[in-house]
Amino acid sequence: LTTVALVGTGLVGGSLGLALRGTGVKVVGYDADADCLRRAVERGAVDSGVSTLPAVFEGADAAFVAVPVSAVAPVVTAALRAGVAAVSDVGSVKAPVVEAVESAGGADAARFIGGHPMAGPGGRRGPEDVTEGIEGADATMFTGATWVLTPTERTDPAAFAAIRDLVASVGAEVVAVDPRLHDDLVATVSHLPHLAAATVMHVAADASPNHDTLLRLAAGGFRALTRLSGRAPDIWPDICVENRVAIVDVLDRYLEALGRARELVSGGERTALLDFFERARAEGSSLPTRSGVTGPLVELAIPVPDRPGVLAEVTTLAGHNGVNIVDLEITHSAHGGTLLMVVPADGADLIVESLERLHYRVVRKELG
Amino acid sequence: LTTVALVGTGLVGGSLGLALRGTGVKVVGYDADADCLRRAVERGAVDSGVSTLPAVFEGADAAFVAVPVSAVAPVVTAALRAGVAAVSDVGSVKAPVVEAVESAGGADAARFIGGHPMAGPGGRRGPEDVTEGIEGADATMFTGATWVLTPTERTDPAAFAAIRDLVASVGAEVVAVDPRLHDDLVATVSHLPHLAAATVMHVAADASPNHDTLLRLAAGGFRALTRLSGRAPDIWPDICVENRVAIVDVLDRYLEALGRARELVSGGERTALLDFFERARAEGSSLPTRSGVTGPLVELAIPVPDRPGVLAEVTTLAGHNGVNIVDLEITHSAHGGTLLMVVPADGADLIVESLERLHYRVVRKELG
Repeated sequence: LTTVALVGTGLVGGSLGLALRGTGVKVVGYDADADCLRRAVERGAVDSGVSTLPAVFEGADAAFVAVPVSAVAPVVTAALRAGVAAVSDVGSVKAPVVEAVESAGGADAARFIGGHPMAGPGGRRGPEDVTEGIEGADATMFTGATWVLTPTERTDPAAFAAIRDLVASVGAEVVAVDPRLHDDLVATVSHLPHLAAATVMHVAADASPNHDTLLRLAAGGFRALTRLSGRAPDIWPDICVENRVAIVDVLDRYLEALGRARELVSGGERTALLDFFERARAEGSSLPTRSGVTGPLVELAIPVPDRPGVLAEVTTLAGHNGVNIVDLEITHSAHGGTLLMVVPADGADLIVESLERLHYRVVRKELG
Repeated sequence: LTTVALVGTGLVGGSLGLALRGTGVKVVGYDADADCLRRAVERGAVDSGVSTLPAVFEGADAAFVAVPVSAVAPVVTAALRAGVAAVSDVGSVKAPVVEAVESAGGADAARFIGGHPMAGPGGRRGPEDVTEGIEGADATMFTGATWVLTPTERTDPAAFAAIRDLVASVGAEVVAVDPRLHDDLVATVSHLPHLAAATVMHVAADASPNHDTLLRLAAGGFRALTRLSGRAPDIWPDICVENRVAIVDVLDRYLEALGRARELVSGGERTALLDFFERARAEGSSLPTRSGVTGPLVELAIPVPDRPGVLAEVTTLAGHNGVNIVDLEITHSAHGGTLLMVVPADGADLIVESLERLHYRVVRKELG
């Protein structure tokens, strides 16, 4: 029986606990907030709760750390020191966490793989539908959602495979991306939307007189931003500070683009405005739909030398092309290892080409 | 039997047709797009369709014009010239339309009252749920929604009362606001959210490389903006141009507020960032919920001299305090008229005070 240590039993941690238990995994929980842990036990999000951090790691085969971003690194380091074979987290910012774990954990850091499920608050279900805390926990939260993992050149392939299997077992689609790229991308698709919406609320709040009338006139668009910007205000300072470089960069691009939009409005440029709105719609409609993998699959067998970095190089190459890693296995033999990776057929060509450009030999097998 | 002329049988016009027919009103429709009109007849959104604009006004007691903003004024003017006693529209911008009608219509313009239901696309139901065109039409679209009317000092009280009654009969809550204030307020609660969301899409579209991965990582926040910014790109150039002064002003305030948010992020100011997000949440949570009037009501009887402007003064005074006009009646006698206005009890004090400050005498009756 696999035993998973779960640190943090709030909305995301609790949902992960429920989902893992549903696959037959034993989940032991710890939360610094004893009341939150008690409610998680009541909801069945964990098999049992323990009252100290070290106790949660005893006998655990893997650990997930679901605490606020600024608190992740020390907990991960504790899990690694306790000897847990594979450790991951669910924080919204990755590079600072990975760096902190590497600098504190030394060689142990190879067993940590940063993670970020793109679900839950601000997740694929949409922020409007989520109750905060363990009360909002939901075993199906991750079904079909993208779950980012951020292996690095030091990552231990066995630890990566263990975390990947657990994440895939709860229905998520794994995309491997390097930590810095992850932070840049979420600055655009998650942190910018939140800040843009919150700032609209400030403009509305500062509008006076007739503020009551203003709110009476608030229609769907404003209400959508309200739901978005109103979620979990306490987690956002952490996110903004930890990812400040990428966020400032994306805000600068946003300010520039807004300035251009302002000129189109101010100049009354109908044709350019139509292009502007058409292009915005086109970008939105190119979003992938919540899939669950349904199309044909391809298995890629890649003989890899036993040296560090190969795993991250191969898997993030898929991730950087937006391709889901449906399955992953590492086999070892006398003359080195083989990485078996299953990906959707429509993304396979791209990966094979890129791998061959890097002088990997790839044996491709259609799985139908 | 009341007969209403409906010009424009798309999503909003079609919904209004369905809703009015449900109250026993006869609806005659015209649409410049014959195919759209045919489908409206099939859906039962109009009792019958006619093939020319003049024909739709024959025998009509009132007319609603549901065409794009830039096309409203000439159609309204045609309705007024045809002698329709009360004419309104459903456009997203009001002051330019009211001014155009006043300058083209002369004395007839007194029978036009600008209108804007805060429902439908970008409306209270949320943009995510709406199918475009007559296929998305829905008889309940206006139930409990705020419907702005914009009387001016020239407005004919009888025409206002007729439009108010029709609008209230489909379940909407009437808020009277002057046209310029309406345009300022919707710039903040409707046009800004749309532009802010569309601009986020542009930043995402310009992000490269790894654009596929970016979209894989798009979670609920980004998806909410996508749904918002993707709606009906063809109506937005009109709105932006017609309301450009108010929109440029609100964009400037938005750019300023974003600049301040950028400084907080860049400076890593955790405490100020928490205040920032808490304040955004507070603004959102102060939104009125979709009510339907359920609390106690108050009838205000206001003896008014028979001079122009009184209606607009009294009704917009309610609107500028965010108060719904639940019912409205004008009675005439030898010594002048009386305006009977029913409003929710919790807004009544404010209105009575303001009216008395303007030297109106108000007789207040609790309706329980």
